[in-house]
Amino acid sequence: MSVKRVVLLGATGSIGRQVRAVVADHPGRLELVGMAAGRRVDDLVQAASEQAPGFGVRWLNVPSPEVRERLRRLLPASVAHGVEITVGEAGMVQMAQAAEVDIVVVAVVGFAGLAPTLAALRAGKTVALATKESLVAGGHLVREALQQGGGTLLPVDSEHSALWQLLEGERGRPERLYLTASGGPFRTAARAEMAQATVAQALQHPTWSMGPKITVDSATLMNKGFEVIEARWLFDVGWDRIEVVVHPESVVHALVAWSDGSLTAQLATPHMRLPVERALLFPETAHGSVPALDPARLGALHFEPADRERFPLLEAAYRAGRLGGTYPAVLNAADEVAVQAFLDGRLRLVEIETVVHQVLERHQGVQAPDLEQVRQADQWARQQAEGLCQALAERSGVR
Amino acid sequence: MSVKRVVLLGATGSIGRQVRAVVADHPGRLELVGMAAGRRVDDLVQAASEQAPGFGVRWLNVPSPEVRERLRRLLPASVAHGVEITVGEAGMVQMAQAAEVDIVVVAVVGFAGLAPTLAALRAGKTVALATKESLVAGGHLVREALQQGGGTLLPVDSEHSALWQLLEGERGRPERLYLTASGGPFRTAARAEMAQATVAQALQHPTWSMGPKITVDSATLMNKGFEVIEARWLFDVGWDRIEVVVHPESVVHALVAWSDGSLTAQLATPHMRLPVERALLFPETAHGSVPALDPARLGALHFEPADRERFPLLEAAYRAGRLGGTYPAVLNAADEVAVQAFLDGRLRLVEIETVVHQVLERHQGVQAPDLEQVRQADQWARQQAEGLCQALAERSGVR
Repeated sequence: MSVKRVVLLGATGSIGRQVRAVVADHPGRLELVGMAAGRRVDDLVQAASEQAPGFGVRWLNVPSPEVRERLRRLLPASVAHGVEITVGEAGMVQMAQAAEVDIVVVAVVGFAGLAPTLAALRAGKTVALATKESLVAGGHLVREALQQGGGTLLPVDSEHSALWQLLEGERGRPERLYLTASGGPFRTAARAEMAQATVAQALQHPTWSMGPKITVDSATLMNKGFEVIEARWLFDVGWDRIEVVVHPESVVHALVAWSDGSLTAQLATPHMRLPVERALLFPETAHGSVPALDPARLGALHFEPADRERFPLLEAAYRAGRLGGTYPAVLNAADEVAVQAFLDGRLRLVEIETVVHQVLERHQGVQAPDLEQVRQADQWARQQAEGLCQALAERSGVR
Repeated sequence: MSVKRVVLLGATGSIGRQVRAVVADHPGRLELVGMAAGRRVDDLVQAASEQAPGFGVRWLNVPSPEVRERLRRLLPASVAHGVEITVGEAGMVQMAQAAEVDIVVVAVVGFAGLAPTLAALRAGKTVALATKESLVAGGHLVREALQQGGGTLLPVDSEHSALWQLLEGERGRPERLYLTASGGPFRTAARAEMAQATVAQALQHPTWSMGPKITVDSATLMNKGFEVIEARWLFDVGWDRIEVVVHPESVVHALVAWSDGSLTAQLATPHMRLPVERALLFPETAHGSVPALDPARLGALHFEPADRERFPLLEAAYRAGRLGGTYPAVLNAADEVAVQAFLDGRLRLVEIETVVHQVLERHQGVQAPDLEQVRQADQWARQQAEGLCQALAERSGVR
């Protein structure tokens, strides 16, 4: 088996660190040849320095010339030797499509992963996708690039990795894909209670430990809505074949309904190491990515419907998804701005919905947009959402 | 797709009727060309008569010349035309290996299915195995026959069919196979309570409706022990890789633990139509074998360890399985006699264990026995068990 050369976009986030740990554990199978990071230069230096001698990073990518200067000063000469430091999206695209590269792990936050994802797929690479935005905002572009380049798209999150595992090799046609949701801290809360929710309450996720944005999105089920959109593009199935089930224990990550009436389910200790290793080692299999679950110790597992009335952002995701075109990009951008406003104390939790709905309402969608049109819709939606957040904050006198 | 010609051994039992219903629903894909039955001649006549005109049964098999005479009198001339009626095991073997046959469904009660199973596999046929005894008593012979003839062995029961579904197409190596057990009517009962159990209590199975023998075996977990032995031979895995988990809802039928730490599970409405149709239509897939389960309506699913101390017959199955040779055949035979004695009111429920343990204890096992030696061990164990049942009944003054 040959060594796979990996480019990691988003090397210093939580997924990025997980990917680095997996690469470090498989020196004969995986090699990091390129990394992109944001402003955490120290950690990027650390990441570049920890590579095994003889292997080595050929490209580093940072968001601006200023960061590049800081990086140049900090990088030890032994590591810096032969490393090209690029800036911005163009540099990420260059790495993603370089001939020496086998796998591109896209774990950068937000929209920045889309262009390199498209470039890698068009160049026939394997893309391990760990961020939602690429598929949410540009799912149709990603599928086009897949068809053009003959690349391979692999999911790196628990639910979609679980679906991938369940779908792989089965003879039948799946009737329905089910993503589980823990239900978040407001699973059993009434709407009135959610209206009063504090930031601290929204950040109390029952089962997963994640960043604040995604934790708030989990509390509103917006995150699960994004995952529905992801699943639609990853597995190329219709909207009415993807459903969300609330499962508070977060042990079952996904289920598939088959035409004969059976269901299959995937269960695992909730930890990102499992989907990361599954994608990076594919088609080989991993050993002991997570501690094995003993079914006899599972106790009770609970399942209940996802309430789209109490969690209207889940419904909004289906609506934006079905509208297609630029609507999902708008959904994503408006939510990002509104969640930030909530985290800043400028908006109430339920007002995230208000902002998202109103921006979607105002949007004049473009069908089959190209990357530039998706970008414009994203920008437009951010401005609109920002304006609405301010108006709402002023009205309630928060700021 | 060509029509598959099916021989059905055990045409008038509950599995047999299910198989007939499935064949009737797929006239272009499945055709019944041979059937064996026991004493239910009326039902066999019915089964032969209900075949679509133009198709038709070529062989019928009954246990004795007397039954053959009754069958000849009852069979309408239009159906009887061109049908050969054979008697006993030799006739079943003849059908099972006939050139015109594609699939042999082995659903005869007890030991009688083993010889035709071996004959069919040696002739390269697909055997859909619905009775436990063939694999329990002659698992090593079945695997030998599989290797010799290049046939295919497919399970027709819920747990093993679920395992087959989960194992199919997966890249990884399974670490462990888990069979679920409802736990039966004595799942939470203390040993003292089980000692007083009546036949009526033992026959109250919480989730499945089955014959009395298998229902009692479910109450003692002996049935699950047999399924462990079946799984060992069906999937060719070691004893320490097969476990039993109690799951009272009987919705999850099996789980597989993978090397990466993940588990997959199969869930379905408990109904034999699903495994029957899966095996008969393989490698094509069935549609709507059972009503689809909605994961959001699953409510709570419970899992707990199988208590081998309260249910020592489960432990006995592992022990007999590991000892190998003629021991599993002896386990099967002793249990069958003891369960009948319990159903006849001659034995207490927990005395089934006593009988099984003592017969296993007395047995001088033969390693790698041939079919004749397996038969002899079966006969020997029945005599021993019968003697023990009588002794126990006399001691407790039951009879």
